[in-house]
Amino acid sequence: MPSPWERRSRRRILETRIFAIDHHRLVSPRTGNEHDIWVVDAVDWCNIIPLTDDDQVVMVRQRRHGTGEVTLEVPGGMVDPEDPSPLEAARREMLEETGYAADDVVSLGAISPNPAFITNRCHSFLARGVRKVAAPRLEGGEDIEVVTVPLASIPERITSGEITHALVVVAFTFALGLGGMPAPLPRLR
Amino acid sequence: MPSPWERRSRRRILETRIFAIDHHRLVSPRTGNEHDIWVVDAVDWCNIIPLTDDDQVVMVRQRRHGTGEVTLEVPGGMVDPEDPSPLEAARREMLEETGYAADDVVSLGAISPNPAFITNRCHSFLARGVRKVAAPRLEGGEDIEVVTVPLASIPERITSGEITHALVVVAFTFALGLGGMPAPLPRLR
Repeated sequence: MPSPWERRSRRRILETRIFAIDHHRLVSPRTGNEHDIWVVDAVDWCNIIPLTDDDQVVMVRQRRHGTGEVTLEVPGGMVDPEDPSPLEAARREMLEETGYAADDVVSLGAISPNPAFITNRCHSFLARGVRKVAAPRLEGGEDIEVVTVPLASIPERITSGEITHALVVVAFTFALGLGGMPAPLPRLR
Repeated sequence: MPSPWERRSRRRILETRIFAIDHHRLVSPRTGNEHDIWVVDAVDWCNIIPLTDDDQVVMVRQRRHGTGEVTLEVPGGMVDPEDPSPLEAARREMLEETGYAADDVVSLGAISPNPAFITNRCHSFLARGVRKVAAPRLEGGEDIEVVTVPLASIPERITSGEITHALVVVAFTFALGLGGMPAPLPRLR
Protein backbone atom coordinates (compact mmCIF):
# COMPACT_ATOMS: atom_id res chain seq x y z
CA MET A 1 0.00 0.00 0.00
CA PRO A 2 1.57 3.35 -1.03
CA SER A 3 2.63 5.29 2.10
CA PRO A 4 1.57 8.81 3.09
CA TRP A 5 3.71 11.68 1.78
CA GLU A 6 5.19 14.14 4.26
CA ARG A 7 4.09 17.74 3.62
CA ARG A 8 6.88 20.33 3.94
CA SER A 9 4.69 23.32 3.07
CA ARG A 10 1.27 24.38 1.80
CA ARG A 11 0.42 27.79 0.38
CA ARG A 12 -2.83 29.15 -1.11
CA ILE A 13 -1.84 30.86 -4.35
CA LEU A 14 -5.23 31.69 -5.92
CA GLU A 15 -8.81 32.08 -4.75
CA THR A 16 -11.81 32.32 -7.07
CA ARG A 17 -15.57 32.06 -6.58
CA ILE A 18 -15.54 28.44 -7.82
CA PHE A 19 -12.25 26.99 -6.56
CA ALA A 20 -8.89 27.83 -4.97
CA ILE A 21 -5.40 26.66 -5.92
CA ASP A 22 -2.97 25.38 -3.27
CA HIS A 23 0.73 24.69 -3.79
CA HIS A 24 2.22 21.88 -1.72
CA ARG A 25 5.81 20.69 -1.24
CA LEU A 26 5.59 16.96 -0.56
CA VAL A 27 8.27 14.34 0.07
CA SER A 28 8.00 11.03 -1.78
CA PRO A 29 8.37 8.12 0.68
CA ARG A 30 9.78 6.06 -2.22
CA THR A 31 12.61 8.39 -3.29
CA GLY A 32 12.93 10.88 -0.42
CA ASN A 33 12.79 13.73 -2.97
CA GLU A 34 10.62 16.84 -2.66
CA HIS A 35 7.92 17.46 -5.27
CA ASP A 36 5.84 20.52 -6.21
CA ILE A 37 2.14 19.65 -6.27
CA TRP A 38 -0.69 21.98 -7.31
CA VAL A 39 -4.16 21.15 -6.06
CA VAL A 40 -7.59 22.54 -7.01
CA ASP A 41 -9.49 22.95 -3.74
CA ALA A 42 -13.24 22.96 -4.39
CA VAL A 43 -16.39 22.50 -2.32
CA ASP A 44 -18.34 19.33 -3.04
CA TRP A 45 -20.53 19.23 -6.13
CA CYS A 46 -23.85 17.47 -6.74
CA ASN A 47 -25.97 16.38 -9.65
CA ILE A 48 -29.42 14.84 -9.92
CA ILE A 49 -31.34 12.80 -12.48
CA PRO A 50 -34.94 14.14 -12.57
CA LEU A 51 -37.19 11.34 -13.83
CA THR A 52 -40.89 11.75 -14.61
CA ASP A 53 -43.46 9.02 -14.00
CA ASP A 54 -43.39 8.22 -17.71
CA ASP A 55 -39.58 7.74 -17.74
CA GLN A 56 -38.55 11.06 -19.22
CA VAL A 57 -35.33 12.63 -17.93
CA VAL A 58 -35.45 16.40 -17.42
CA MET A 59 -32.13 17.74 -18.73
CA VAL A 60 -30.51 21.10 -19.37
CA ARG A 61 -28.65 22.44 -22.36
CA GLN A 62 -26.17 25.16 -21.52
CA ARG A 63 -23.03 26.80 -22.81
CA ARG A 64 -20.07 25.68 -20.71
CA HIS A 65 -17.11 28.03 -20.44
CA GLY A 66 -14.45 25.37 -19.86
CA THR A 67 -14.87 23.75 -23.27
CA GLY A 68 -16.91 26.56 -24.89
CA GLU A 69 -19.46 23.96 -25.99
CA VAL A 70 -23.20 23.58 -25.46
CA THR A 71 -23.69 20.47 -23.34
CA LEU A 72 -26.62 18.21 -22.48
CA GLU A 73 -26.54 17.56 -18.74
CA VAL A 74 -28.67 16.81 -15.73
CA PRO A 75 -29.06 19.64 -13.19
CA GLY A 76 -26.24 20.10 -10.73
CA GLY A 77 -23.82 22.51 -9.14
CA MET A 78 -21.95 23.37 -6.00
CA VAL A 79 -23.07 22.29 -2.53
CA ASP A 80 -23.31 25.75 -0.95
CA PRO A 81 -22.48 26.39 2.73
CA GLU A 82 -26.18 27.22 3.23
CA ASP A 83 -27.34 23.84 1.89
CA PRO A 84 -28.27 21.49 4.76
CA SER A 85 -26.91 18.48 2.79
CA PRO A 86 -25.77 17.44 -0.68
CA LEU A 87 -29.27 16.00 -1.24
CA GLU A 88 -30.93 19.34 -0.45
CA ALA A 89 -28.38 21.10 -2.68
CA ALA A 90 -29.36 18.78 -5.52
CA ARG A 91 -33.07 19.49 -4.94
CA ARG A 92 -32.32 23.22 -5.01
CA GLU A 93 -30.30 22.99 -8.24
CA MET A 94 -33.05 20.91 -9.89
CA LEU A 95 -35.70 23.46 -8.92
CA GLU A 96 -33.61 26.50 -9.92
CA GLU A 97 -32.40 25.13 -13.26
CA THR A 98 -35.54 23.28 -14.42
CA GLY A 99 -38.49 24.26 -12.18
CA TYR A 100 -39.09 20.55 -11.40
CA ALA A 101 -39.46 19.01 -7.94
CA ALA A 102 -40.15 15.61 -6.36
CA ASP A 103 -40.73 14.11 -2.93
CA ASP A 104 -38.80 10.94 -3.78
CA VAL A 105 -35.07 11.71 -3.98
CA VAL A 106 -32.51 8.96 -3.34
CA SER A 107 -28.72 8.97 -3.18
CA LEU A 108 -26.93 7.11 -5.99
CA GLY A 109 -23.37 7.47 -4.72
CA ALA A 110 -20.42 9.84 -4.66
CA ILE A 111 -17.30 10.03 -6.82
CA SER A 112 -13.99 11.91 -6.91
CA PRO A 113 -14.04 14.12 -10.03
CA ASN A 114 -10.23 13.78 -10.20
CA PRO A 115 -8.41 12.56 -7.06
CA ALA A 116 -5.05 13.40 -8.68
CA PHE A 117 -5.52 17.14 -8.30
CA ILE A 118 -9.06 18.08 -7.19
CA THR A 119 -9.96 17.75 -3.51
CA ASN A 120 -13.70 17.29 -3.68
CA ARG A 121 -16.46 14.74 -4.27
CA CYS A 122 -19.51 14.87 -6.50
CA HIS A 123 -22.71 13.44 -5.01
CA SER A 124 -25.30 11.98 -7.42
CA PHE A 125 -29.03 11.66 -6.80
CA LEU A 126 -32.13 10.29 -8.51
CA ALA A 127 -35.48 12.11 -8.23
CA ARG A 128 -38.49 9.96 -9.15
CA GLY A 129 -41.92 11.26 -10.09
CA VAL A 130 -40.74 14.81 -10.76
CA ARG A 131 -43.36 17.43 -11.67
CA LYS A 132 -42.96 20.97 -12.97
CA VAL A 133 -43.85 23.28 -10.09
CA ALA A 134 -42.25 26.60 -11.10
CA ALA A 135 -40.43 28.45 -13.84
CA PRO A 136 -36.62 27.99 -13.85
CA ARG A 137 -34.82 30.69 -11.84
CA LEU A 138 -31.41 31.25 -13.38
CA GLU A 139 -28.40 32.90 -11.81
CA GLY A 140 -26.74 35.71 -13.76
CA GLY A 141 -24.03 33.49 -15.21
CA GLU A 142 -26.43 30.74 -16.26
CA ASP A 143 -28.01 30.40 -19.69
CA ILE A 144 -30.04 27.23 -19.74
CA GLU A 145 -32.61 25.49 -21.91
CA VAL A 146 -34.70 22.70 -20.34
CA VAL A 147 -35.34 19.58 -22.45
CA THR A 148 -36.88 16.21 -21.65
CA VAL A 149 -35.54 13.04 -23.23
CA PRO A 150 -36.57 9.38 -22.82
CA LEU A 151 -34.54 7.48 -20.22
CA ALA A 152 -34.14 4.67 -22.76
CA SER A 153 -32.24 7.06 -25.06
CA ILE A 154 -29.51 7.83 -22.49
CA PRO A 155 -27.04 5.00 -23.31
CA GLU A 156 -27.10 5.95 -27.02
CA ARG A 157 -26.62 9.65 -26.14
CA ILE A 158 -23.53 8.68 -24.12
CA THR A 159 -21.97 6.38 -26.74
CA SER A 160 -22.71 8.87 -29.54
CA GLY A 161 -20.93 11.66 -27.64
CA GLU A 162 -24.04 13.85 -27.20
CA ILE A 163 -23.65 13.60 -23.41
CA THR A 164 -20.01 14.63 -22.82
CA HIS A 165 -19.79 15.53 -19.11
CA ALA A 166 -17.96 12.82 -17.17
CA LEU A 167 -19.89 13.46 -13.95
CA VAL A 168 -23.23 13.16 -15.77
CA VAL A 169 -22.08 9.82 -17.23
CA VAL A 170 -21.13 8.68 -13.73
CA ALA A 171 -24.61 9.60 -12.40
CA PHE A 172 -26.26 7.51 -15.13
CA THR A 173 -23.80 4.66 -14.51
CA PHE A 174 -24.82 4.67 -10.85
CA ALA A 175 -28.51 4.76 -11.88
CA LEU A 176 -28.53 2.26 -14.70
CA GLY A 177 -25.61 0.00 -13.82
CA LEU A 178 -22.96 -1.42 -16.12
CA GLY A 179 -23.38 -4.12 -18.69
CA GLY A 180 -26.39 -3.72 -20.99
CA MET A 181 -25.24 -1.26 -23.66
CA PRO A 182 -23.67 -2.39 -26.95
CA ALA A 183 -20.04 -2.55 -25.90
CA PRO A 184 -16.71 -3.99 -27.00
CA LEU A 185 -16.61 -6.27 -23.96
CA PRO A 186 -18.93 -9.25 -23.44
CA ARG A 187 -21.77 -8.50 -21.05
CA LEU A 188 -21.10 -9.53 -17.49
CA ARG A 189 -24.50 -11.13 -17.01
CA MET B 1 -29.92 26.67 -28.17
CA PRO B 2 -27.90 28.86 -25.75
CA SER B 3 -25.96 31.52 -27.72
CA PRO B 4 -22.19 32.12 -27.66
CA TRP B 5 -20.89 34.54 -25.02
CA GLU B 6 -18.80 37.49 -26.13
CA ARG B 7 -15.32 37.53 -24.59
CA ARG B 8 -14.17 40.96 -23.39
CA SER B 9 -10.79 39.78 -22.05
CA ARG B 10 -8.70 36.73 -21.29
CA ARG B 11 -5.64 36.64 -19.05
CA ARG B 12 -3.40 33.76 -17.93
CA ILE B 13 -3.04 34.11 -14.17
CA LEU B 14 -1.22 30.91 -13.19
CA GLU B 15 0.89 28.28 -14.93
CA THR B 16 1.88 24.95 -13.38
CA ARG B 17 3.37 21.72 -14.76
CA ILE B 18 -0.10 20.11 -14.84
CA PHE B 19 -2.48 22.94 -15.76
CA ALA B 20 -2.82 26.70 -16.18
CA ILE B 21 -5.55 29.05 -14.94
CA ASP B 22 -7.12 31.63 -17.27
CA HIS B 23 -9.42 34.46 -16.20
CA HIS B 24 -12.07 35.50 -18.72
CA ARG B 25 -14.54 38.40 -18.77
CA LEU B 26 -17.57 37.17 -20.70
CA VAL B 27 -20.88 38.84 -21.55
CA SER B 28 -24.07 36.88 -21.03
CA PRO B 29 -26.24 37.03 -24.17
CA ARG B 30 -29.29 36.60 -21.91
CA THR B 31 -28.70 39.52 -19.52
CA GLY B 32 -25.98 41.59 -21.24
CA ASN B 33 -23.99 41.58 -17.97
CA GLU B 34 -20.28 40.84 -17.68
CA HIS B 35 -19.15 37.81 -15.69
CA ASP B 36 -15.79 36.71 -14.26
CA ILE B 37 -14.98 33.16 -15.33
CA TRP B 38 -11.97 31.10 -14.19
CA VAL B 39 -10.96 28.20 -16.39
CA VAL B 40 -8.47 25.35 -15.83
CA ASP B 41 -6.58 24.92 -19.10
CA ALA B 42 -5.12 21.42 -19.33
CA VAL B 43 -3.74 19.17 -22.07
CA ASP B 44 -5.83 16.15 -22.91
CA TRP B 45 -5.68 13.15 -20.61
CA CYS B 46 -5.95 9.44 -21.38
CA ASN B 47 -6.65 6.22 -19.55
CA ILE B 48 -6.60 2.57 -20.59
CA ILE B 49 -8.14 -0.68 -19.37
CA PRO B 50 -5.44 -3.40 -19.62
CA LEU B 51 -7.22 -6.76 -19.91
CA THR B 52 -5.46 -10.13 -19.86
CA ASP B 53 -6.62 -13.12 -21.92
CA ASP B 54 -8.18 -14.59 -18.77
CA ASP B 55 -10.24 -11.42 -18.07
CA GLN B 56 -8.09 -9.87 -15.37
CA VAL B 57 -7.82 -6.07 -15.30
CA VAL B 58 -4.32 -4.72 -14.53
CA MET B 59 -4.85 -1.79 -12.14
CA VAL B 60 -2.73 0.57 -10.06
CA ARG B 61 -3.00 1.63 -6.45
CA GLN B 62 -1.48 5.02 -5.77
CA ARG B 63 -1.65 7.89 -3.34
CA ARG B 64 -3.43 10.83 -4.98
CA HIS B 65 -2.56 14.31 -3.79
CA GLY B 66 -5.92 15.95 -4.61
CA THR B 67 -7.91 13.87 -2.14
CA GLY B 68 -4.93 12.48 -0.17
CA GLU B 69 -6.37 9.00 -0.60
CA VAL B 70 -5.00 5.77 -2.03
CA THR B 71 -7.06 4.99 -5.14
CA LEU B 72 -7.61 1.94 -7.34
CA GLU B 73 -7.38 3.05 -10.96
CA VAL B 74 -6.47 1.94 -14.44
CA PRO B 75 -3.26 3.42 -15.88
CA GLY B 76 -3.52 6.90 -17.36
CA GLY B 77 -2.07 10.37 -17.46
CA MET B 78 -1.42 13.36 -19.63
CA VAL B 79 -1.13 13.20 -23.40
CA ASP B 80 2.37 14.71 -23.74
CA PRO B 81 3.38 16.88 -26.71
CA GLU B 82 5.81 14.09 -27.70
CA ASP B 83 3.04 11.47 -27.88
CA PRO B 84 2.00 10.81 -31.50
CA SER B 85 -1.65 10.31 -30.43
CA PRO B 86 -3.82 9.78 -27.32
CA LEU B 87 -3.71 6.03 -28.08
CA GLU B 88 0.09 5.99 -28.05
CA ALA B 89 0.06 8.07 -24.85
CA ALA B 90 -2.20 5.46 -23.25
CA ARG B 91 0.13 2.63 -24.36
CA ARG B 92 3.07 4.55 -22.88
CA GLU B 93 1.31 5.14 -19.55
CA MET B 94 0.29 1.46 -19.36
CA LEU B 95 3.87 0.34 -19.97
CA GLU B 96 5.41 2.87 -17.55
CA GLU B 97 2.95 2.34 -14.70
CA THR B 98 2.42 -1.44 -14.97
CA GLY B 99 5.03 -2.94 -17.33
CA TYR B 100 2.20 -4.46 -19.43
CA ALA B 101 1.79 -4.15 -23.20
CA ALA B 102 -0.57 -5.37 -25.94
CA ASP B 103 -0.85 -5.24 -29.72
CA ASP B 104 -4.64 -4.93 -29.58
CA VAL B 105 -5.61 -1.45 -28.32
CA VAL B 106 -8.98 0.09 -29.28
CA SER B 107 -10.55 3.47 -28.59
CA LEU B 108 -13.56 3.46 -26.26
CA GLY B 109 -14.50 7.14 -26.49
CA ALA B 110 -13.64 10.56 -25.09
CA ILE B 111 -15.28 12.64 -22.37
CA SER B 112 -15.05 16.14 -20.90
CA PRO B 113 -13.79 15.81 -17.31
CA ASN B 114 -15.74 18.97 -16.44
CA PRO B 115 -16.89 21.21 -19.31
CA ALA B 116 -17.95 23.89 -16.81
CA PHE B 117 -14.37 24.90 -16.01
CA ILE B 118 -11.80 22.48 -17.48
CA THR B 119 -10.90 22.81 -21.16
CA ASN B 120 -9.75 19.32 -21.99
CA ARG B 121 -10.95 15.83 -22.92
CA CYS B 122 -10.03 12.44 -21.51
CA HIS B 123 -9.60 9.64 -24.07
CA SER B 124 -10.31 6.08 -22.93
CA PHE B 125 -8.87 2.90 -24.44
CA LEU B 126 -9.12 -0.87 -24.02
CA ALA B 127 -6.05 -3.10 -24.39
CA ARG B 128 -6.84 -6.79 -24.93
CA GLY B 129 -4.44 -9.68 -24.40
CA VAL B 130 -1.98 -7.65 -22.32
CA ARG B 131 1.23 -9.36 -21.18
CA LYS B 132 3.88 -8.24 -18.71
CA VAL B 133 6.92 -7.26 -20.76
CA ALA B 134 8.92 -5.05 -18.38
CA ALA B 135 9.16 -3.76 -14.82
CA PRO B 136 7.13 -0.59 -14.13
CA ARG B 137 9.19 2.58 -14.68
CA LEU B 138 7.89 5.24 -12.30
CA GLU B 139 8.39 8.99 -12.52
CA GLY B 140 9.74 10.74 -9.42
CA GLY B 141 6.30 11.88 -8.26
CA GLU B 142 4.67 8.47 -8.73
CA ASP B 143 4.30 5.81 -6.08
CA ILE B 144 2.38 2.93 -7.55
CA GLU B 145 1.47 -0.65 -6.71
CA VAL B 146 0.25 -2.90 -9.56
CA VAL B 147 -2.69 -5.23 -8.82
CA THR B 148 -4.82 -7.46 -11.04
CA VAL B 149 -8.53 -7.89 -10.37
CA PRO B 150 -11.19 -9.92 -12.20
CA LEU B 151 -13.15 -7.92 -14.78
CA ALA B 152 -16.37 -9.39 -13.32
CA SER B 153 -15.59 -7.67 -9.99
CA ILE B 154 -15.49 -4.14 -11.47
CA PRO B 155 -19.22 -3.21 -11.14
CA GLU B 156 -19.17 -4.19 -7.44
CA ARG B 157 -15.94 -2.21 -6.89
CA ILE B 158 -17.66 0.86 -8.37
CA THR B 159 -20.91 0.55 -6.39
CA SER B 160 -19.03 -0.20 -3.16
CA GLY B 161 -16.92 2.95 -3.57
CA GLU B 162 -13.58 1.13 -3.92
CA ILE B 163 -13.12 2.66 -7.38
CA THR B 164 -13.63 6.40 -6.77
CA HIS B 165 -12.11 8.15 -9.81
CA ALA B 166 -14.85 9.50 -12.10
CA LEU B 167 -12.75 9.11 -15.26
CA VAL B 168 -12.00 5.47 -14.43
CA VAL B 169 -15.74 4.84 -13.97
CA VAL B 170 -16.37 6.47 -17.36
CA ALA B 171 -13.78 4.19 -19.01
CA PHE B 172 -15.53 1.10 -17.59
CA THR B 173 -18.93 2.50 -18.58
CA PHE B 174 -17.67 2.84 -22.16
CA ALA B 175 -16.26 -0.71 -22.00
CA LEU B 176 -19.06 -2.53 -20.27
CA GLY B 177 -22.09 -0.46 -21.18
CA LEU B 178 -24.96 0.60 -18.97
CA GLY B 179 -27.70 -1.58 -17.58
CA GLY B 180 -26.55 -4.84 -15.99
CA MET B 181 -25.49 -3.85 -12.47
CA PRO B 182 -27.86 -4.02 -9.49
CA ALA B 183 -29.33 -0.55 -9.72
CA PRO B 184 -32.28 1.51 -8.49
CA LEU B 185 -33.66 1.86 -12.00
CA PRO B 186 -35.15 -1.01 -14.00
CA ARG B 187 -32.78 -2.40 -16.61
CA LEU B 188 -33.23 -0.93 -20.05
CA ARG B 189 -33.12 -4.29 -21.82
